[in-house]
Amino acid sequence: MDGNSLGAPSQAVADAIAERVDEWRRRLVSGWEDWIELPGRVGDLLGEVALGAAAGQVVVGDSTTVNLYKLASAALDARPDRRAVVVDADEFPTDRYVLSGLAERRGLAVRASVDSDTALVLRSHVDFRTGALRDMAAVAAATHTVGALTLWDTSHSLGAVDVRLDDAGADLAVGCTYKYLGAGPGTPAFLYVRRGLSDTLRSPIQGWFGQHDQFAMGEEYRPVAGIGRLSGTPSVLDLAAVEAAARVLGEAGIAAVRAKSSALTAHAIVAADSELSALGFELATPREADRRGGHVALRHADAWRICRALIEHESVVPDFREPDILRLGMPPLTTTFGDVTEAIGRIRRVVERGLHLGYGSARTRVT
Amino acid sequence: MDGNSLGAPSQAVADAIAERVDEWRRRLVSGWEDWIELPGRVGDLLGEVALGAAAGQVVVGDSTTVNLYKLASAALDARPDRRAVVVDADEFPTDRYVLSGLAERRGLAVRASVDSDTALVLRSHVDFRTGALRDMAAVAAATHTVGALTLWDTSHSLGAVDVRLDDAGADLAVGCTYKYLGAGPGTPAFLYVRRGLSDTLRSPIQGWFGQHDQFAMGEEYRPVAGIGRLSGTPSVLDLAAVEAAARVLGEAGIAAVRAKSSALTAHAIVAADSELSALGFELATPREADRRGGHVALRHADAWRICRALIEHESVVPDFREPDILRLGMPPLTTTFGDVTEAIGRIRRVVERGLHLGYGSARTRVT
Repeated sequence: MDGNSLGAPSQAVADAIAERVDEWRRRLVSGWEDWIELPGRVGDLLGEVALGAAAGQVVVGDSTTVNLYKLASAALDARPDRRAVVVDADEFPTDRYVLSGLAERRGLAVRASVDSDTALVLRSHVDFRTGALRDMAAVAAATHTVGALTLWDTSHSLGAVDVRLDDAGADLAVGCTYKYLGAGPGTPAFLYVRRGLSDTLRSPIQGWFGQHDQFAMGEEYRPVAGIGRLSGTPSVLDLAAVEAAARVLGEAGIAAVRAKSSALTAHAIVAADSELSALGFELATPREADRRGGHVALRHADAWRICRALIEHESVVPDFREPDILRLGMPPLTTTFGDVTEAIGRIRRVVERGLHLGYGSARTRVT
Repeated sequence: MDGNSLGAPSQAVADAIAERVDEWRRRLVSGWEDWIELPGRVGDLLGEVALGAAAGQVVVGDSTTVNLYKLASAALDARPDRRAVVVDADEFPTDRYVLSGLAERRGLAVRASVDSDTALVLRSHVDFRTGALRDMAAVAAATHTVGALTLWDTSHSLGAVDVRLDDAGADLAVGCTYKYLGAGPGTPAFLYVRRGLSDTLRSPIQGWFGQHDQFAMGEEYRPVAGIGRLSGTPSVLDLAAVEAAARVLGEAGIAAVRAKSSALTAHAIVAADSELSALGFELATPREADRRGGHVALRHADAWRICRALIEHESVVPDFREPDILRLGMPPLTTTFGDVTEAIGRIRRVVERGLHLGYGSARTRVT
């Protein structure tokens, strides 16, 4: 029940990695004739099957953190006269740390709401704690009204929610590929820049993979046109995994995947209402299907101890998130309705039997 | 003959990747209990077997470009009153682009020589074109005399030369793992910060992998002590490859590897002198064994056309580097003396038969 932290491997992904290793052995350095195009090729595929992004706007490479940094820095350069950035205090840590670091260096204020002095709004599409799904188009409209740019972190929606970056008027986005997509631990993130914007953005990290005529190795840095200028050196093995995982998602179809995801979370909510509400659990996730992503969060004063007991006594692995959230991730490609029923039943059993009472509190853990 | 662009896979590396995929399948998210330590664990191993770096000073993760950026930015922050950086005009492109980007943003001059206004000196340990090996200790001494910091790019020495970062008084270093080490295309780079310096350096990219008490997800960014603060999210699959490749190198022993590398390049130089000097080739690599790295560079006016003909007619894959260099890489773990003899013989055959004359000039290619 933690596939929204790390998805499970499909056979297609495992096979693709083994085939890429074999290709490396056969082709050696000549493999780069094809591999050099992987960030854009896999980016376009991901844009098509998962992100609602037309070709030429997505590249895959680097971590979510590095991509957030590149895009946020470039966006602030593009709004040099604005004095503030907007990010929620409960936003995912790396998003806040990256943005506050950039803001501090430039003397910008970090605020909670948008106004005419805002350069950039950074938001998660799905909240990593509660699972709340934000209305991307509404945020984009409000942000564009004041002339600011939007940067979306889709880490908790990619592969579970039908993300529509183009239709929603998103400017910039990032997200990781190891959660619902299931490409593997630490596989590279994507970055998206809407068409028309990429030629004006300049990466703060001037790498040779964004250089015009890369192998001429010219004296001056002259970035290529388009999204490629924001691309870093690709991990060729990891990109085999991301490409295979994206194909699996494409075969299932994101609309069908989202429909199953909504049904799974609805099933979990009904089961939690019926079996867990009398045991001190409270639903933190929106009840309206179109206002939540692919996971369900339950608040409980003993959430951390319950989480430990579930792992050790019941072989159920959820996630604990500070301060009181038990998070149940259910990647639609690999989770059955029976899995959800069983997990809720085991949570009930742990609490009814007091199996969690033998563990220290969360505060003991955090040292 | 291009293993200094991309090394060949050992069976140990291929096996380690397959085992890591299997571990992911078995352990799912609980694998992170061990994987979280990979950047430092593999970094320490690499420090021991290849870099002459005691534990706690090396982490593996992110690309060479991103690591250069992080370290150069942090070093410039540490010398806020200095107005210049030093990098050679013929340094590897990404090194120049990264540093000139940082310098431009801060209004610093980019110079070719060190003086009392220098904040940072960036140098390659082995020149990517000529194979010349720089005296790390001498550069460090000259740099430290004026109070500047040194940043070394060891991409072309790691795994071929006995790098001794600690002994040489290096401050900072980066390097990639896919050349002589043979970890695989696009595998992550390392970064090194000498003991005592890491606590004072702050990454410009404030990611959650450098955060104190990472999973408490605190409001403020508070970097951990030591090298870990400069670490990014690790690619767990790639790190399996880097770890396995480092173990193979450790079994052979870097001293033995360097001895064979010197003998291989000496053999290539003798053979080129005898077979190629009458055909317009000129040695660009130092003849003294202790002044060169693991590759041999030959200048020729038709270098690009000869390179094409070698690949297509003779199944010999060297590298061409602008403007006139034919680069012969010979990773000591996988290259035999017979390979070198055969390659030089085939170069002679191509030129004697004029097989290269059917190809356009390099200038035609660069469009």
